[in-house]
Amino acid sequence: MRASEIRALFSVANRPEVVSLAGGMPFIEGLPLDVIGEAMDRLIRTRGTRALQYGSGQGEESLRERITEVVAMEGVEAHPDDITVTTGSQQALDLVTRIFIDPGDVIVAEAPSYVGALGVFRSYQADVVHVELDADGLVPAALEATLSRLAAEGRRAKMLYTIPNFHNPAGVTMSVERRPQILEICRRHGVLVVEDNPYGLLGFEDDPYPALRSYDADGVIYLGSFSKTFAPGYRVGFVIAPHAVREKLVLASESAILSPSNASQLAVETYLDTCDWRAQIKDYREMYRERRDALVGALAEHIPAASWNVPVGGFFVWVKLPEGLDAKSMLPRAVTERVAYVPGTAFYFDGQGSDHMRLSFCFPTPDRIREGVRRLATVVNAESELVQLFGTTAQPDDDPTDVEIPSPDLA
Amino acid sequence: MRASEIRALFSVANRPEVVSLAGGMPFIEGLPLDVIGEAMDRLIRTRGTRALQYGSGQGEESLRERITEVVAMEGVEAHPDDITVTTGSQQALDLVTRIFIDPGDVIVAEAPSYVGALGVFRSYQADVVHVELDADGLVPAALEATLSRLAAEGRRAKMLYTIPNFHNPAGVTMSVERRPQILEICRRHGVLVVEDNPYGLLGFEDDPYPALRSYDADGVIYLGSFSKTFAPGYRVGFVIAPHAVREKLVLASESAILSPSNASQLAVETYLDTCDWRAQIKDYREMYRERRDALVGALAEHIPAASWNVPVGGFFVWVKLPEGLDAKSMLPRAVTERVAYVPGTAFYFDGQGSDHMRLSFCFPTPDRIREGVRRLATVVNAESELVQLFGTTAQPDDDPTDVEIPSPDLA
Repeated sequence: MRASEIRALFSVANRPEVVSLAGGMPFIEGLPLDVIGEAMDRLIRTRGTRALQYGSGQGEESLRERITEVVAMEGVEAHPDDITVTTGSQQALDLVTRIFIDPGDVIVAEAPSYVGALGVFRSYQADVVHVELDADGLVPAALEATLSRLAAEGRRAKMLYTIPNFHNPAGVTMSVERRPQILEICRRHGVLVVEDNPYGLLGFEDDPYPALRSYDADGVIYLGSFSKTFAPGYRVGFVIAPHAVREKLVLASESAILSPSNASQLAVETYLDTCDWRAQIKDYREMYRERRDALVGALAEHIPAASWNVPVGGFFVWVKLPEGLDAKSMLPRAVTERVAYVPGTAFYFDGQGSDHMRLSFCFPTPDRIREGVRRLATVVNAESELVQLFGTTAQPDDDPTDVEIPSPDLA
Repeated sequence: MRASEIRALFSVANRPEVVSLAGGMPFIEGLPLDVIGEAMDRLIRTRGTRALQYGSGQGEESLRERITEVVAMEGVEAHPDDITVTTGSQQALDLVTRIFIDPGDVIVAEAPSYVGALGVFRSYQADVVHVELDADGLVPAALEATLSRLAAEGRRAKMLYTIPNFHNPAGVTMSVERRPQILEICRRHGVLVVEDNPYGLLGFEDDPYPALRSYDADGVIYLGSFSKTFAPGYRVGFVIAPHAVREKLVLASESAILSPSNASQLAVETYLDTCDWRAQIKDYREMYRERRDALVGALAEHIPAASWNVPVGGFFVWVKLPEGLDAKSMLPRAVTERVAYVPGTAFYFDGQGSDHMRLSFCFPTPDRIREGVRRLATVVNAESELVQLFGTTAQPDDDPTDVEIPSPDLA
């Protein structure tokens, strides 16, 4: 399937009759829209000439102050001046890559990794080398071995891109023990760490994990977002970076967009000031936990021949299909059965992953999730029968660059 | 002066006691903020789950439909599918450059040209060749000669970047006679035309001029914006491009930001549907005309030794200083006298322009504009005395790349 075919499939998958386990859209129906609407009215009436005007390239200082309070929940001590506000954290990824990466440079990332990051890295002609992860996240010994091997080959990695919490797509979380180990390895090899953390406050069991940035202010660039904890429609993300990097970020952002939206920034600030955002996050956590339970319960009931992790936060379950099945070639059949997912190949730079799929539990209700898994089971069973009769349906992916699925569906 | 020094100067220039004739900020105090606030409240209450969610990479179809009505005022016949919504038209510039320009490629632009575009072109390592403009805009014979010379040197230009209406910074407008001539020259030389038109509806005298895009749907990429006709704080711009380019634009935009802000897009759509935006533009035109009159009147009264054009729309007057004066080295003294402008060097790729300055009349009231010009006259007179005593104060600009003035101040 070419990118355009996958696009066509996903446009079908957005129809209401399809249960989409593909998208990473948060369930914003849970927000108090009447309270937010009223607050936006007041914002425009009282601070409209600021909200509707151009702003600073770095972002509004008042919002950057609020952001320091949010990230303090993960142990991050930041000054408002360390922060650059971006058009979603996707723009932060784009700017950081633009600044640090020349064509041919190596970026190390988990195997698998976020499709939107891989797309950015590819657009700047980086080479991505994947490193193994397990149930405790990125494996330190594997990272050490990869960086040493690259050095021996004369190809020093410039950057580690990691999603420590409730990984997209793998669902796993880097253990607290491993965090300083990973940082020590990167420091020793002179590798910058880019910590992408959109889901960190959405854990189902524990307090937030300490961010990598909380251990090391100089070697870590932290990417954050209000898209999952509040709402993605404002496109407000941010970067926390060392001073010299921050200056480059602001210049690069001004070149790209002049300044981030003041209306959006003040809307987020108003939300943080007006609504009980901590209680809202608690509601989200409970709601998403219930949906996770629905998904893994339905998988156990209907597709026991597959295997998966049970994430302790975030939006995603990473499913290994029964032997011989190919998630990508199975997708058109799944959409015909009115269920959608993202094939695992989207999350690798090199065409791996056809035996996996990412299922997201963030948007559909628990009942819809269960119905989606039932439909998926029909497809998996039919494919499995074919495999038993004719051998594998898997095909080598000869063009890994064709996985440009529309990013908003994969956030 | 280094970029950081200019930055420091401009941060002083933003103080209220300074009359800034530097920034390109529209005077949004003229907007009906109570009506807009109420409409935003209704938007969030009734369409909040859409406004606050991720959207399409290309932008909301309902807004793209409204955009076709707006650009029809300039004779542009576009289908909503031809349009890609961007985070201000600055992002459109960035994406178009990202798609078309490889390091070393030549872009032809007016002399002078928009500083924010030059910054983007520089960031993609393009080479910019300036072409003469006069009171009727870009000079066709000069364009022809430049393109022929480049071809003879084996350096084909890929793109013409032009601001046909109420040029930033030059204030001039391309005559209707010249428009098809410019297009014909570009077509013959295989040069893509990028038409940047943020001010097109803000003419003081006539109906809007026909856009270059209205003559040629295939060879022109049109960049538009709601920043000057409504409000920049939402950061909503757009590109109208041929189909093949539009597909690339959407992919590049998804890589850069996933999707433009739905909240911002629906806010603009709501504004267009709720408020009498045509009457608002009419108000803006009258207000800006009055400010232009204040500026050129004060120049004639207080700095008659300088020369300037009288723009028939837009935000800017391009002033040639009396012989021997240097706008860049004079700036610190001007800021000390509590008046700010942008030195002409910012608008050239190659360090020209030290004998010019850009004065903007969009933001200060007529009284403040007159006061600003009086202060400027004090500085110009003092500098002129120095020139008469000691010869020129002008210094060669040995590092044209240091003109990275904060872009939001120069929009």
